[in-house]
Amino acid sequence: MVSTPRARGNRGRQPAKPIIRLWFKCENLQRIGAFKARGAFHAIERLKQDPSFTESGGMEKGVVGFSAGNHAQALALAAKESGIPAYIVMPDITRPNKIAATKRYGANVIVCPRFERETTAANIVAEKGARLVPPFNHPDVILGQATAGLELQEQADNLNAIIAPCSGGGLLAGTALSCEGTSIRVFGAEPEFEGADDGRRGFLTGERVTSVNTNTIADGLIGVVGEIPWSVIYERMLVDGMFAVSEEQILEATRLILERLKMVVEPAAAVTLAVALYNEEFRQMVEKEAGEKGWDLGLILSGGNVSADGLAKLFG
Amino acid sequence: MVSTPRARGNRGRQPAKPIIRLWFKCENLQRIGAFKARGAFHAIERLKQDPSFTESGGMEKGVVGFSAGNHAQALALAAKESGIPAYIVMPDITRPNKIAATKRYGANVIVCPRFERETTAANIVAEKGARLVPPFNHPDVILGQATAGLELQEQADNLNAIIAPCSGGGLLAGTALSCEGTSIRVFGAEPEFEGADDGRRGFLTGERVTSVNTNTIADGLIGVVGEIPWSVIYERMLVDGMFAVSEEQILEATRLILERLKMVVEPAAAVTLAVALYNEEFRQMVEKEAGEKGWDLGLILSGGNVSADGLAKLFG
Repeated sequence: MVSTPRARGNRGRQPAKPIIRLWFKCENLQRIGAFKARGAFHAIERLKQDPSFTESGGMEKGVVGFSAGNHAQALALAAKESGIPAYIVMPDITRPNKIAATKRYGANVIVCPRFERETTAANIVAEKGARLVPPFNHPDVILGQATAGLELQEQADNLNAIIAPCSGGGLLAGTALSCEGTSIRVFGAEPEFEGADDGRRGFLTGERVTSVNTNTIADGLIGVVGEIPWSVIYERMLVDGMFAVSEEQILEATRLILERLKMVVEPAAAVTLAVALYNEEFRQMVEKEAGEKGWDLGLILSGGNVSADGLAKLFG
Repeated sequence: MVSTPRARGNRGRQPAKPIIRLWFKCENLQRIGAFKARGAFHAIERLKQDPSFTESGGMEKGVVGFSAGNHAQALALAAKESGIPAYIVMPDITRPNKIAATKRYGANVIVCPRFERETTAANIVAEKGARLVPPFNHPDVILGQATAGLELQEQADNLNAIIAPCSGGGLLAGTALSCEGTSIRVFGAEPEFEGADDGRRGFLTGERVTSVNTNTIADGLIGVVGEIPWSVIYERMLVDGMFAVSEEQILEATRLILERLKMVVEPAAAVTLAVALYNEEFRQMVEKEAGEKGWDLGLILSGGNVSADGLAKLFG
């Protein structure tokens, strides 16, 4: 079908030839272009049902988020639709079009130095009495992301497994919770470049990795797994395995999704397909476990927020 | 919303501000990535019902097409699914990935010098007794393309108008036929670069333009309107108007579709959106006719067969 980037870890064995039927959950078509809308909307809905928020004037005092990316727009939109003021703290490295998009959703955008996001957000919380809605390390946000997995299970019957990308871990933890009590196995996908596979490394050692500095092309996946997602992913053992892929494999999977699915996705979304197509460890496992029946495998395409210029840089 | 390429023909007037609700018919998600599958499948089905084809051994002798683009793959696929041999003549300027894709559909590909396509095809017809299925200048092909318009009318209620791209005119003529007897108005969209607006120019003078040589970025639209499409578009007056847009406007519309719809489309598809957003003549007309109620406007996104490398060239 395509020239396959060399599978890794194949030490002389024949490459596995698992039978896999792919089901794509297209979160690039979600509002704001990524799954993050789910967590933000759910967190806002929960706040509106929380007397400690509403009775203290929370609807007027508003919410605070910090993000250079999709969570910013997601929270801005969710707050706007409920008539709640939103304060979005964005680091000064944020691309101007993301700042503009967040402002278009009616948010108050506060630009701050890169490493002062959390303190800036904390100051606004103190000053305005607004409530912090974190990007992933919060149960309501995780449960919101879980709806992607629930929908996928309704839309694709008889899934054997789902792969979700893993950065802060909100989507992966939510997906795992959505499959709890079913026979569906859940796996996480990460870039391996410059240690971006913090989730996989933590999974292997049993200890959560708390810092990473990577410039992977999957720039939506540079975060480290948060404590609460980690408790779902690892401690509760709701995720069956973590797999990492190379930059070349991510790029090739992104290309396939663009050219064959005609879908614009950011490279972070394509890590799931890259694992399914190119990660030899994953493929050996599926071949062994699925046999001739094969697997129905859900892949969560987490988002499509890449600009045309960004695509040109990736493939130019 | 976005920086708008300067509207043309606006001689001092205020730009029109029509109210338009857009409905996209995503033929980029069609099999082989473009509407051409419709015409090819319909033509093959009709052949299978034609005793002059079947009783002369047509199912074994096969079909012949000439195309550097989407018709090649469409005919190859349609023939394959009916178990009919296909001979596809492709000019030597065809990109290798298109030749490879056509071969993957099981066709016999014959590469010939650029200007010998038709004679090469005619030779195969004579030699093999195979039947020619032309890319647009054939009633069955046009009626196949018409199903895109029929589906769009079922999917989007109460359309006021549809814009389709116009190259050889098969899609535009089919769309017009699909709207015959309804109140839905049909318009054609073309690039204006280097005379690629042959349909519009013919429409204005009443005489079909029979040759064009253009290097527009909308490389799916370099053909001239064929005789049979012309008879539908102009002589039967089933198309209400033709509009042309600049290269800059096509590029900006392509960018919007990529970034906002998260859909990969080739520039030829984006001419429809470019007319709706940037053609001042069109917009003045809609503003005047639609008033405050606005229009529900269908746009046929004709195809998505552009490679990642091609996108990089467009936006790099």
